[in-house]
Amino acid sequence: MEVPWSERYASRTRRMTSSSVRELLKVTERPGVISFAGGLPAPELFPTEKVAEVCQRILLEAGSVALQYGATEGYRPLRELIAQQMRSEGVRVTSDNVLITTGSQQAIDLVGKIFLDPGDPVVVESPTYLAAVQAWSAYEADFVGVRSDESGMDVDHLETVMHRLPKLIYCLPNFQNPSGVTLSTERRERLVDISLRYGVPLVEDDPYRDLRFEGPHLPRLITLESATQVARDDYHGTVISLSSFSKILAPGLRVGWVIAAPEVIFQLTQAKQGTDLHTSMLDQMIAYEMLRSGFLEEHKQLVAQAYHERRDAMLEALAEHFPADAHWTRPQGGMFLWVELPESIDATELLEKALEQQVAFVPGQGFHVDGGGHNTMRLNFSNSAPAQIREGIRRLGRQVQQLQCTPCRAS
Amino acid sequence: MEVPWSERYASRTRRMTSSSVRELLKVTERPGVISFAGGLPAPELFPTEKVAEVCQRILLEAGSVALQYGATEGYRPLRELIAQQMRSEGVRVTSDNVLITTGSQQAIDLVGKIFLDPGDPVVVESPTYLAAVQAWSAYEADFVGVRSDESGMDVDHLETVMHRLPKLIYCLPNFQNPSGVTLSTERRERLVDISLRYGVPLVEDDPYRDLRFEGPHLPRLITLESATQVARDDYHGTVISLSSFSKILAPGLRVGWVIAAPEVIFQLTQAKQGTDLHTSMLDQMIAYEMLRSGFLEEHKQLVAQAYHERRDAMLEALAEHFPADAHWTRPQGGMFLWVELPESIDATELLEKALEQQVAFVPGQGFHVDGGGHNTMRLNFSNSAPAQIREGIRRLGRQVQQLQCTPCRAS
Repeated sequence: MEVPWSERYASRTRRMTSSSVRELLKVTERPGVISFAGGLPAPELFPTEKVAEVCQRILLEAGSVALQYGATEGYRPLRELIAQQMRSEGVRVTSDNVLITTGSQQAIDLVGKIFLDPGDPVVVESPTYLAAVQAWSAYEADFVGVRSDESGMDVDHLETVMHRLPKLIYCLPNFQNPSGVTLSTERRERLVDISLRYGVPLVEDDPYRDLRFEGPHLPRLITLESATQVARDDYHGTVISLSSFSKILAPGLRVGWVIAAPEVIFQLTQAKQGTDLHTSMLDQMIAYEMLRSGFLEEHKQLVAQAYHERRDAMLEALAEHFPADAHWTRPQGGMFLWVELPESIDATELLEKALEQQVAFVPGQGFHVDGGGHNTMRLNFSNSAPAQIREGIRRLGRQVQQLQCTPCRAS
Repeated sequence: MEVPWSERYASRTRRMTSSSVRELLKVTERPGVISFAGGLPAPELFPTEKVAEVCQRILLEAGSVALQYGATEGYRPLRELIAQQMRSEGVRVTSDNVLITTGSQQAIDLVGKIFLDPGDPVVVESPTYLAAVQAWSAYEADFVGVRSDESGMDVDHLETVMHRLPKLIYCLPNFQNPSGVTLSTERRERLVDISLRYGVPLVEDDPYRDLRFEGPHLPRLITLESATQVARDDYHGTVISLSSFSKILAPGLRVGWVIAAPEVIFQLTQAKQGTDLHTSMLDQMIAYEMLRSGFLEEHKQLVAQAYHERRDAMLEALAEHFPADAHWTRPQGGMFLWVELPESIDATELLEKALEQQVAFVPGQGFHVDGGGHNTMRLNFSNSAPAQIREGIRRLGRQVQQLQCTPCRAS
């Protein structure tokens, strides 16, 4: 029997396009592939024994809390601890400014759910994080791409699009996914000023901040913005700051958080209640224990150090194997770097050739909401050992050279 | 400084009303309150030691899977096991028919996300599950309430509203939340027939099925519907069947699932990816182990038996302490029963008096999408021991009698 009702899906479904991230993750699952494609942390660095120990203690000492329904806002001690850490950085926040989410991705979705109506303009960097575009496409956002360079989002360009009165400005200030670039302090100040002048909420998506392996921390957008506010106990500004335990502890535990004005937290909480009631209590309690005990503070340095070595291996291999007219970013942290190939090279064509050589990456075009970037690519360096990175970049470099060489292409 | 931008929330936020469930859960947190208000399982029955043991094994043997990002569709072995269990009941499904969700609540949200556009009619039972109304209100559904009685949804009444061509029909066939009633087999057949005739997806929300403590299992809606299909390996029908580990294992682990046609699963998966990437891997692997080992099969019988005693305690206490002109349902399973008080009594007024006596419940009016039910109430019997239930119902009965007695009211 044919299924006539499947023809009657809401138009909303048709607007959600098939995700390239998802299709690409399938490639990385093939055994033997050196993958620079995903965004996976290094699993060999997961503190599995520590998590097992903490998990055991939680279940035996507070099992009836860990296994029971919890408050939508999140596990209170965790919210308080996060607020306390922010206060120690000089941002006045209370636990009323904190909502725990099922990974940062849920925070992105909930922000879309409470702010966006069909056709609303949303400013994003170009290139930007794919899954944010996917999440907000479900609410039919109209994306406005703003150029970025080695210092992050181009705030002069941003100023020229503000007449469209976007509902949100979305920015990844540190070691951006996909480009690896970091927003300069001067631009951070100007970005916050623009958000305030136009009264437009500024979404600071900052999952990589703690993975800095060189240079000093730059001020958070929420820190800069709160400095402009009249002092009071809780935060009431326009920044909505997202973070996560995924990159510093483990993404398989889905625990992220939002810091924002209490009225925004209230709306997000209402929306979250209809969405999944609350985030896994066990996962929240594990994250809490790791943070409270100070374990995470040490562990994240270990992770950053390992990624530092991997980035260095990639930078060295790129210098050795890629042509002189290719350019790439030099991230001071995080998990990704960005390569601009010579104009003549199409990165999707390169991917096809690279996959034959068992190497995967993500072509850059898909990260642009306004097209462009056909000759760009995102390379992940966190999920491969330095030796694999060198071998993978060597193979990639050979394919790039073959594509540049017309006689080779003809052969 | 005033925050002008908070005035510019999307209209979407204003449409989400403050949740009575949420406010009521706050009441239940007060120490000393005998609460029939929430929908919490009995925490003393949680198999905490077993979960601790399983958790330990998962982390030490497969920690790099449990802590890493996973597929949006869910942990493959769990999807396959669920498909296999459905096949053993005679429904032809494969793992392509199964999506793991962050609790059943997420499945409800995702169904709304892919099917509903503003103003779309959605048929629900009256009374119905509050958090489904909340989730779908975010997509601006137009709810159409269909009467129900001691045999569940009134399918004759349903037939009269089908000219509105609803996008979804939503039904909780077993021990419904809030009423505790079970849809009769004859009505199940007619409901499936209506779904097929009008080509309208039928959402079967069935988290309580395994908590049956008397009488035989009635056929699932998806089982009845698949019997009408031409035999093939996977399920392609109009039923979207939701279930969860929350009531038989632990709600703090947020693991539920959907069984539906592959094209629906595909759309739900796309939507889920933007929403939270995937469900906690650790939680999924715990659920898998509990199911695979057969532990859950035994454990759910233990839970059902405990709830049986609690229901009996509540029924006996109601018969003893409530007036003769009050009526209540006699659920054959689940966690709730429903009381219809004499017309003259307003359940919200009763709640105020009951709270003074440290007893909480949920007035029934909020569960109706079309008003009505001012003299009804939902009583949860899973979260209190039999002695507490007897004491709580005794106090409630006294308040009911005082409200009925005009001289008492005046005093």
